[in-house]
Amino acid sequence: MRTIYSEQHRLRDARTELYGGELVQPFEKPSRAETVLRVVRESGLGEISPPEAFSLEPVLAVHDADYIAFLETAWQEWQDAGYAGEVIASVWPARRMQSRVPRFIDGKVGYYAMAAETSISEGTWAAALASKDVALTGAKALLDGERGVFSLCRPPGHHAALDMYGGYCFLNNAAIAAQYLRDHGAERVAILDIDFHHGNGTQDIFYARDDVLFCSLHGDPEDAFPHFLGYADETGSGLGTGYNRNYPMPPGTPFAQWREALADALARVGEFSPQYLVVSLGVDAFENDPISFFKLTSPDFLTTGQMIGALDIPTLFVMEGGYDVDEVGVNVVNVLKGFDA
Amino acid sequence: MRTIYSEQHRLRDARTELYGGELVQPFEKPSRAETVLRVVRESGLGEISPPEAFSLEPVLAVHDADYIAFLETAWQEWQDAGYAGEVIASVWPARRMQSRVPRFIDGKVGYYAMAAETSISEGTWAAALASKDVALTGAKALLDGERGVFSLCRPPGHHAALDMYGGYCFLNNAAIAAQYLRDHGAERVAILDIDFHHGNGTQDIFYARDDVLFCSLHGDPEDAFPHFLGYADETGSGLGTGYNRNYPMPPGTPFAQWREALADALARVGEFSPQYLVVSLGVDAFENDPISFFKLTSPDFLTTGQMIGALDIPTLFVMEGGYDVDEVGVNVVNVLKGFDA
Ligand SMILES: [Zn+2]
Ligand SMILES: [Zn+2]
Repeated sequence: MRTIYSEQHRLRDARTELYGGELVQPFEKPSRAETVLRVVRESGLGEISPPEAFSLEPVLAVHDADYIAFLETAWQEWQDAGYAGEVIASVWPARRMQSRVPRFIDGKVGYYAMAAETSISEGTWAAALASKDVALTGAKALLDGERGVFSLCRPPGHHAALDMYGGYCFLNNAAIAAQYLRDHGAERVAILDIDFHHGNGTQDIFYARDDVLFCSLHGDPEDAFPHFLGYADETGSGLGTGYNRNYPMPPGTPFAQWREALADALARVGEFSPQYLVVSLGVDAFENDPISFFKLTSPDFLTTGQMIGALDIPTLFVMEGGYDVDEVGVNVVNVLKGFDA
Repeated sequence: MRTIYSEQHRLRDARTELYGGELVQPFEKPSRAETVLRVVRESGLGEISPPEAFSLEPVLAVHDADYIAFLETAWQEWQDAGYAGEVIASVWPARRMQSRVPRFIDGKVGYYAMAAETSISEGTWAAALASKDVALTGAKALLDGERGVFSLCRPPGHHAALDMYGGYCFLNNAAIAAQYLRDHGAERVAILDIDFHHGNGTQDIFYARDDVLFCSLHGDPEDAFPHFLGYADETGSGLGTGYNRNYPMPPGTPFAQWREALADALARVGEFSPQYLVVSLGVDAFENDPISFFKLTSPDFLTTGQMIGALDIPTLFVMEGGYDVDEVGVNVVNVLKGFDA
């Protein structure tokens, strides 16, 4: 399987993450992608290619234009305001407040954020643009006939909604890729999100649509970020009713239980009969992940890849989460090798 | 004029405020109340009395019970989760997300917060309880026939909504006092908020009611916290239509302009003909306030007090904001002396 990778991800190197009431070094850091790349290389998975450059058009197909304009200038506007730290939201349109975009950057940040753990830092926008190129280059390879491609995206994307960032995500790479496939001939695209966290952004973008099926396995939002989306009762709206499927699972969930949810999701994907499958590939369901609570082992990721591969649908793997441990590389490659097997 | 004061405010002594992407020492700190108390003493304004203790009943008359239960246990639940910092919201029910209370404390905090600058710290709840006693003792003194009383509340209250904290506020002291006056015989109570910031919490609590008039002079939310409430088009809902009046003003607003808004607000209060007036007394409209942008001078606060006093309505002054400068005491006492003149 071919891997798409850009060194531009290193431009996303924030100093701060708000965690447990402190500003800590971000869990989502450059070494993550480098660890994955190293294991991809060592394992002989396949060729590693740089991305092509794409315009903003496929981005604007899933994100609001005003949100994109905000991301482009947020760091500069924050600097202009004289703030010493990185861009962090401190007030937002809460219950019974107005949902409008204020003039001052502090208010704009709150409008476009869904979380405060994620700082916008110098270089974030450039890295996000490169990350979407990595995803789109993978999507194009599927259109050109490749069976499986790995887009080693960083920053990740699945928490980025129509008009909101958060959860370390700015542009929704998986959604951008899925929409690109739709816009280039595919009638139906399925997105399977196996990251530990609910893919709230992806759900948000496709919630009212029946041409993109979204299935997500994740930590129960009662207990896990993003807390306010990812419940089982969210099944889609309007035309999209029945095309959104969440599998929230409790702390301590072992692979035996998780694989049942995966099997159910894969059965739904199979019934949907999509031309392409996009997998939001986070490996933070791993037992030693520092911010998650599932109990998957490294061999379980191989099984996961085999189960996905058995569907026999051209598949784009888009890198999402997985934190702080050496096994992030092994676990990712296990999924990809399982798929190829 | 009598001042109600409790040393319990010192229990509110947070280490951290999220400001400009950094954790800084909070602007809302114990020395504020002590500076005001010192100038009250030195100026011979009048007697300084401790508060009586009140039950939670008058609190629950304006705040939701589940919100109060959250405030009572938030610090302990956060400690139990093993977090090293103070309680700071990092994710919230944003657009198109579910508005439900998650099980885990990190999610609960986000549900009940409207801002992340305000940390909940050890002692916050105890201080907030004492602060509402200070406000209620003042309200009771009005019922007993005093013409003007100063409740030197800390923490402040006017940003605290029905079920949300933020802006350094936890319990809405002014709203609790106004409702107490209503529940003890007053048919109509007016609240005049002259703090630099919009009293979003007070507006929220009384927005649909015609028995409590709310008028607020403040920095335009386009430019100033809380950014998502306080616009001129918010005039009340249902029965309350016409009983909410906002006067947002731009950066650099001088007293000449501000006093016109005050005169208009006072005229509306006069027409409303309330039995009592509650003044949310912030003095952050002061020209040297570190986080605000109006240009009032110390003598302007004397004029302000005179204008309020000219209404000749029994009035409770409830301390809100005003930061970091010695003049916070002088400016507060100027308002009170102006009222008494
Ligand atoms: Zn994740
Ligand atoms: Zn204020």
